[in-house]
Amino acid sequence: MKVKPLGERLLIKPIIEEKKTAGGIVLPDAAKEKPMKAEIVEVGKLPEDCTLKVGDKVIYNKYSGTELKIDDEDYIIIDVNDILAKIEE
Amino acid sequence: MKVKPLGERLLIKPIIEEKKTAGGIVLPDAAKEKPMKAEIVEVGKLPEDCTLKVGDKVIYNKYSGTELKIDDEDYIIIDVNDILAKIEE
Amino acid sequence: MKVKPLGERLLIKPIIEEKKTAGGIVLPDAAKEKPMKAEIVEVGKLPEDCTLKVGDKVIYNKYSGTELKIDDEDYIIIDVNDILAKIEE
Amino acid sequence: MKVKPLGERLLIKPIIEEKKTAGGIVLPDAAKEKPMKAEIVEVGKLPEDCTLKVGDKVIYNKYSGTELKIDDEDYIIIDVNDILAKIEE
Amino acid sequence: MKVKPLGERLLIKPIIEEKKTAGGIVLPDAAKEKPMKAEIVEVGKLPEDCTLKVGDKVIYNKYSGTELKIDDEDYIIIDVNDILAKIEE
Amino acid sequence: MKVKPLGERLLIKPIIEEKKTAGGIVLPDAAKEKPMKAEIVEVGKLPEDCTLKVGDKVIYNKYSGTELKIDDEDYIIIDVNDILAKIEE
Amino acid sequence: MKVKPLGERLLIKPIIEEKKTAGGIVLPDAAKEKPMKAEIVEVGKLPEDCTLKVGDKVIYNKYSGTELKIDDEDYIIIDVNDILAKIEE
Repeated sequence: MKVKPLGERLLIKPIIEEKKTAGGIVLPDAAKEKPMKAEIVEVGKLPEDCTLKVGDKVIYNKYSGTELKIDDEDYIIIDVNDILAKIEE
Repeated sequence: MKVKPLGERLLIKPIIEEKKTAGGIVLPDAAKEKPMKAEIVEVGKLPEDCTLKVGDKVIYNKYSGTELKIDDEDYIIIDVNDILAKIEE
Repeated sequence: MKVKPLGERLLIKPIIEEKKTAGGIVLPDAAKEKPMKAEIVEVGKLPEDCTLKVGDKVIYNKYSGTELKIDDEDYIIIDVNDILAKIEE
Repeated sequence: MKVKPLGERLLIKPIIEEKKTAGGIVLPDAAKEKPMKAEIVEVGKLPEDCTLKVGDKVIYNKYSGTELKIDDEDYIIIDVNDILAKIEE
Repeated sequence: MKVKPLGERLLIKPIIEEKKTAGGIVLPDAAKEKPMKAEIVEVGKLPEDCTLKVGDKVIYNKYSGTELKIDDEDYIIIDVNDILAKIEE
Repeated sequence: MKVKPLGERLLIKPIIEEKKTAGGIVLPDAAKEKPMKAEIVEVGKLPEDCTLKVGDKVIYNKYSGTELKIDDEDYIIIDVNDILAKIEE
Repeated sequence: MKVKPLGERLLIKPIIEEKKTAGGIVLPDAAKEKPMKAEIVEVGKLPEDCTLKVGDKVIYNKYSGTELKIDDEDYIIIDVNDILAKIEE
């Protein structure tokens, strides 16, 4: 199933980071707080001056967007204005 | 009875997906969460750059739209801006 | 008494549908939920591209409009934007 | 004392209708619900395409406007957009 | 101390009216309800088509404006749009 | 430390006035209510038709602006639209 | 990891100031109240008439912006309109 966002929206996949506790136990980041990093999976019709593209890693506003499951994995459809920053590694 | 949406609205029919539990029991998706997939049944006067048409399957914002019953079946009249994505299979 | 809506408003008369229970008892629809069908009784000054006219049956947003009694019957004065769809039989 | 509304406002006087109960007792309408009929007493500077004038009877949005007493009688100063319909008898 | 309102604001002085109870006791109006009459004391930069001037008596929206004390007397700084009507005696 | 407001904002210093009680005890005004007078300390980029300048005394909307401490003294950064009046002595 | 803000946003790093209590104990400012000073770390696409740049120290609206951790340090992504003032030392 392929999901194509409409309008100025993107489909993003949250990135869950693992963290080790002091005692060495690995905890997914979500155990502490909602993740804010995601990878762009599909884009709708973005504004002309927007350079975001599939594969970019971004910081998004965690209280925005609509969560949905595709093939049992979590995705978010989000407005381009709720993408706060691009991660350049 | 035929219902023709007015303005930039669509008439959609939610798609209820069945799910099997670990023990093999079939549960409609609605037993867990509100469905977000629907098929377009009728369209009003959509914006010119909108390519949605009757028969398209879409993801919609589940907190939007107005539920109504037609011949004992559930439908939703929803604004085109609350259609988040198109499902391309 | 004749009531002429002002601006982009309409005067509509809700349609109460009767339903039979399993045991054959006739229940007005309102016993279950607020009706959403109505017939247009008077129109104000509607937008030029609006084709709604007196006698049309419509679906309206049940949380909108102002209820009033005329000669002991229930009517609603409602904005044209809260008429969601036209019923074409 | 004469009160001249400013801007697109009107001064209206609510019309209280008497009702007889089954037993013949006369009840003012207000004993049951807030009145919604009023007569226009003064007009401010109404929009050019507005034909409302002093003496017209109207239906108004009962949750709008500002109540005031003039010489111990109740009046309402209300925006022209909250006049829903004109009563033509 | 002279207070000159900025922008489309006015400085007004509420008018407290005395009322006699049945027993002849004089009660200021404020003992019953907030006053709504005021006299204009200073004006800011009012819109060109506004004819309000210092000394005019007006009806104002009692839930608007900012109360302040000048030399121990009560005044209100209020937006011109919250002046509902002019009192012409 | 010098704080330069950005945009249509001003830095103001609230003026606390002393009051004597009947018994002659001096009470700062703040013991009774929030002060509303202030002196302008710095200005940002005010609109062209705004004549406010450093040193002016003003009445401000006491529920607006952001309080901050500079060198242990209280200041407020406030939007020019929340300055209600100028005090001309 | 480098985070590049999108649109009219900035990445800022809050400045925590130490304070000594009367008894000489050093307390970080955050023990008393949320800090409001920050240094600009990265800028997005700011408006043309905005002179803010990386390294500037600013006062920001403490209830605005989105907190995030980068390499275990606290940062805020904030809209340029929520930067209230520039600190010029």
